[in-house]
Amino acid sequence: MTSETILLGLIGDDISLSRTPAMHEAEGLAHGRPTVYRRLDTVTPRLADRSLNEVLTAARDLGFNGLNITHPHKQAVLPLLDDVAPQAAELGSANTVVIAEDGTMTGHNTDVTGFARGLAEGLADAAMDTVVQVGAGGVGNAVAYSLVTNGTAKLLVADLDQTRAQALADSVNRAVGREAVTGVSALGIEEHIAVADGVVNATPMGMPAHPGTAFDTSCLSQRHWVGDVVYMPIETQLLAESRALGCRTLDGTRMAVYQAVDAFRLFTGLEPDARRMRETFLSLG
Amino acid sequence: MTSETILLGLIGDDISLSRTPAMHEAEGLAHGRPTVYRRLDTVTPRLADRSLNEVLTAARDLGFNGLNITHPHKQAVLPLLDDVAPQAAELGSANTVVIAEDGTMTGHNTDVTGFARGLAEGLADAAMDTVVQVGAGGVGNAVAYSLVTNGTAKLLVADLDQTRAQALADSVNRAVGREAVTGVSALGIEEHIAVADGVVNATPMGMPAHPGTAFDTSCLSQRHWVGDVVYMPIETQLLAESRALGCRTLDGTRMAVYQAVDAFRLFTGLEPDARRMRETFLSLG
Repeated sequence: MTSETILLGLIGDDISLSRTPAMHEAEGLAHGRPTVYRRLDTVTPRLADRSLNEVLTAARDLGFNGLNITHPHKQAVLPLLDDVAPQAAELGSANTVVIAEDGTMTGHNTDVTGFARGLAEGLADAAMDTVVQVGAGGVGNAVAYSLVTNGTAKLLVADLDQTRAQALADSVNRAVGREAVTGVSALGIEEHIAVADGVVNATPMGMPAHPGTAFDTSCLSQRHWVGDVVYMPIETQLLAESRALGCRTLDGTRMAVYQAVDAFRLFTGLEPDARRMRETFLSLG
Repeated sequence: MTSETILLGLIGDDISLSRTPAMHEAEGLAHGRPTVYRRLDTVTPRLADRSLNEVLTAARDLGFNGLNITHPHKQAVLPLLDDVAPQAAELGSANTVVIAEDGTMTGHNTDVTGFARGLAEGLADAAMDTVVQVGAGGVGNAVAYSLVTNGTAKLLVADLDQTRAQALADSVNRAVGREAVTGVSALGIEEHIAVADGVVNATPMGMPAHPGTAFDTSCLSQRHWVGDVVYMPIETQLLAESRALGCRTLDGTRMAVYQAVDAFRLFTGLEPDARRMRETFLSLG
């Protein structure tokens, strides 16, 4: 007789390249728990006609134990859940839904905890007081929330779309109850970076389809730390140039792996082996 | 990286005791393919409000590779499928639905093939010309169809509800295009058994909740063979008494295991190890 099996899924648009399914399937199996993790791609014909709530309740009713939620559903999922953990509720965004035996669905945000753990490990003791984040889309709100709840007193969020930057700032400020974040234009952001402790790229710049860097790295000096959420490639142009300047760097793999590590723990109650999940992640590169 | 995983389910009423999930999960894993097999119990609150078609299409859209179908949905499922294999179409009943990569759903009946294989192995060379089947519910139509397409020229189906027996006879006769089956009352069935080559119990009699035998075994003699679809216990009172009389017997485990063996092959394209699946089945007893 096999031991209790685990059924998980990822709900989002255009998720065929996600490495999260493989991380969970391999980690579950390593714990002796055969695990199936299905992509529930909401742009495919099979799911495009279904509402998020339909996909969610179908997964619950068909025996899924948990779901990851990604773009564009992280905010929309909240009102559909039975319960939301404090951090996810505060931020208004969940990337992880745990489905209990009785069907109760609880939202969590492991982008936040995953980025924070990467920060703590990869940039231990770095100055965090003033940080610039370039990019307000995608995981931008989780990164910003994570920074200002982990030591950053003043965060500037820059986006080509300043309205989007300001909206993110407003939402995170509301979440943390103070004016920690300011939305600014990406134009001339180098001046702000020059005087900050560190900078995080939260744009897709550096991926093969978006070559280059999101800002002119000549504003950096050795005292800066530089983080990137892009993990494909791991060594983005930004990180390569930063390292050449002597900056401490944080690559995108940590957040990508730790969000899955934290989700696996929530889904299964088992303690994941983060190093093993990282190895699975890297094996897909 | 784990190899391609398999996701299966069983749709039916009151299926908590089914051993089919464990057989598929263990067999998949033994092939290096982590397999999750979920019970989709249509009397539970989560599914009771959904139509069969809703459960079916949800399973398809959420990445299931196949489904078994059991009481009371084996007939109702047919018009909901894209395609039905000849045997299942002829009988008007499917217990197995293969879901292709592109979402196409094809029905099969492995109760029929499973019973036939059990018959061929367990009662090789037994006289099959005239058979009495007691019980027209549950898997009764698959057993009857299997018998008359595997050597039985004349089958009497007896049921306490003679209308049900006649309905089964009509449906199987239509399927095979000849008057192979006659529906009769269970009353006085012993007379018919006495002159038949063999008899199959397709009632729940012999299970702990239904003690006893479905007919008076004093009509049996050594020249009869006796089959039972009950597998809990494996040695029913009927089989014990038959064996004591020197009859050849066929217990219910073969059909229960071989329906799963044949379904696994259809679901996965892999050649199952029938002995291993049987071991899993017996380990749950």
